Amino acid sequence: MISSNPVRGARDILPGEMLIRDTLEQKILSIYRQHGFSRIETPALENIDLLLGSEGGENLKMLFTILKRGDKLKISEDSTTKDLCDMGLRFDLTLPLSRFYANNAQTLELPFKAIQIGNVFRAERPQKGRFRSFKQCDIDIIGDPTVSAEMELISTTAKALLAIGFEDFTIKVNDRKLLNAFIKKAGFAEADIPSICISLDKADKIGPEGVAKELVDKGYDEAMVAAFVREAEDISLDNIGDKVDEPEAVADLKRVIETSQTLAEGRYKVVFDFSLIRGMGYYTGQIFEVSYGPYGFSIAGGGRYDNMIGKYAKTSVPAVGFSIGFERIVTILMEEQAGKKASSESIVLFYDAAGDDMAQVIRFADTLRDQGKTVNLTAMKKKFGKQIGYYADKDYDGFMVFGRDEAIKSFD
Amino acid sequence: MISSNPVRGARDILPGEMLIRDTLEQKILSIYRQHGFSRIETPALENIDLLLGSEGGENLKMLFTILKRGDKLKISEDSTTKDLCDMGLRFDLTLPLSRFYANNAQTLELPFKAIQIGNVFRAERPQKGRFRSFKQCDIDIIGDPTVSAEMELISTTAKALLAIGFEDFTIKVNDRKLLNAFIKKAGFAEADIPSICISLDKADKIGPEGVAKELVDKGYDEAMVAAFVREAEDISLDNIGDKVDEPEAVADLKRVIETSQTLAEGRYKVVFDFSLIRGMGYYTGQIFEVSYGPYGFSIAGGGRYDNMIGKYAKTSVPAVGFSIGFERIVTILMEEQAGKKASSESIVLFYDAAGDDMAQVIRFADTLRDQGKTVNLTAMKKKFGKQIGYYADKDYDGFMVFGRDEAIKSFD
Repeated sequence: MISSNPVRGARDILPGEMLIRDTLEQKILSIYRQHGFSRIETPALENIDLLLGSEGGENLKMLFTILKRGDKLKISEDSTTKDLCDMGLRFDLTLPLSRFYANNAQTLELPFKAIQIGNVFRAERPQKGRFRSFKQCDIDIIGDPTVSAEMELISTTAKALLAIGFEDFTIKVNDRKLLNAFIKKAGFAEADIPSICISLDKADKIGPEGVAKELVDKGYDEAMVAAFVREAEDISLDNIGDKVDEPEAVADLKRVIETSQTLAEGRYKVVFDFSLIRGMGYYTGQIFEVSYGPYGFSIAGGGRYDNMIGKYAKTSVPAVGFSIGFERIVTILMEEQAGKKASSESIVLFYDAAGDDMAQVIRFADTLRDQGKTVNLTAMKKKFGKQIGYYADKDYDGFMVFGRDEAIKSFD
Repeated sequence: MISSNPVRGARDILPGEMLIRDTLEQKILSIYRQHGFSRIETPALENIDLLLGSEGGENLKMLFTILKRGDKLKISEDSTTKDLCDMGLRFDLTLPLSRFYANNAQTLELPFKAIQIGNVFRAERPQKGRFRSFKQCDIDIIGDPTVSAEMELISTTAKALLAIGFEDFTIKVNDRKLLNAFIKKAGFAEADIPSICISLDKADKIGPEGVAKELVDKGYDEAMVAAFVREAEDISLDNIGDKVDEPEAVADLKRVIETSQTLAEGRYKVVFDFSLIRGMGYYTGQIFEVSYGPYGFSIAGGGRYDNMIGKYAKTSVPAVGFSIGFERIVTILMEEQAGKKASSESIVLFYDAAGDDMAQVIRFADTLRDQGKTVNLTAMKKKFGKQIGYYADKDYDGFMVFGRDEAIKSFD
């Protein structure tokens, strides 16, 4: 017998979770649309050259690639992935959006505000709560070089999170330009910035001492590292202007944080966090991340990537995006809202498969549906008591037996 | 510069079409749910053994397969797809549903009524209107051996089509059991049935004479073929009982067609069509297809497949499904409804990026959104007249300039 398991690292989604997912997705999409964003869609498959030529960082090691077909497939023992494969599954929605914009620029006015909701694929080592196929909800503003775009994205993402029931989350903001300037000023070489950032990014888990140890292990001078880590910990929105010579970026950062705090009206926090790094190599300006409650993972993240679209389009176009990690919010809301039930009245209508006229049964169900009810039509089984027990556990409001009951009966 | 084209045979979906697609999908999903069906989701990727071991017919020649990764990939010159690949992209939603049911049977009561909406992938030769990645909307009833399931699926699918604006479509019904019995009675061998069906399936395009010619070319006796084709053309619901010895199947077919006609109340047609074949090898009973207007393609199709789930589950479980071809209904509705606009009021709110306070601008936009409006926030450009022209063409109801206009202005 062939295995009925889903592929490794992926999973089947059952009806109860699916209803929650659909409700969340619709609420988020509706907020995004109301804020003037337009949904687009790109194929899950992209050309292998596009994927491998991107600044996807670690994600490029986790590509799912598609074998060439027919005569195009030529196998020899030293064939590489690029020889054998012509496409791959997308690992995020930002790279496809950049390609999309370049491909359709002639029909789109700038700024172009895009919504993307879809699955991305990464061949990660499967572990609890991490899947190889997962959904992201992204909004991006293409063509606005000013931080008005950052403010709009932060406000819109916050309103989507509020709309689905999150309160008291924290939006952390930082700027790659300030990070880069600070690292260089501490005495590190420009080329070493990515490696320094990888170490800094671990501060959450290994603490500043751990970061310092790792940098020393990487071969940097111990005194320089100690001063760098100490000073990084000390940085605040008030003193950052004295530590780096980036007056415009500092002023923009302050404007974004102050404006966003004003708009938050106390429902969520917006803070400067100089330890926020984010992994992607393509960020060029402000970066953001949303943390919530006791959960050790972020529920949303994003940033400015002004140099990506220029790789595919004739001219360089600034862009900034914010992505909600859909699987993570589903996990949290399923834990917090367990037991809540759907709003419209739903019943099971039992009928006698041997005796009843199906045209009459379906027509009667339709009159109930016309009243707004959800009606699940089901033939009675011999063990009717046991059958009823199953539906009593499944969030139905009641049941009827066709031709016998005049009113909806309760399961109680 | 890297190409910005989507992969061959796939396409980018622009905002206007995406809004129509989302509206259609929501309406279909809502009808399905109201009829007691529950949505589930399976991964787009399935194990290669499952895909290659299925009765997918022609679809198996169009598989997209995923290269193994890391140490598991061992290349030699005589490597087969199965050696090189461990997964593939699903080519339909029926096979994944059968696997899903087998994998989750212990938590699901029979009958289980499933909704699946998702993309499937086939490496077809790209041609106009045919894509390598496309969406299907399926409902299936698992665990009901009676034709009540057929009646429910036909009625529910028809109501979904009516809800999205289709009228006067035709639902054709046939039964594989009757087809098989008729073919055998005409003198063909049981093993030849699939090949005869492939020829019969072309009657739409090549006519009965073409079918006869093809069968003779395949080596069958000319007189036998002529009698067979003539008699097949003659078959009706009234005389089918005399032509084959399948009294139960004939009675079931009549019940399904009569009940469905009663429920249709003249809004659509339900007819017996003995020339309806459908390609899949896995059908075991009644099969259906929906045709509409002058379009040469069907907009929905399905049938009973009682033997598939038993390949993955411990026991055999009957099943029947009906699938709406989402891309085809989008194509038709975009042609028919071109120019219709969205229902809620939507405006563009222009602001001065240099002078306005973004907190005030966003807050003002939010008060309009609280009134139910869709507000697209946009910085004024130097060529404001030209900029307004773009939005005037885009279905917005009007615009405002922040701090200047008190009421919404019309583009006219």
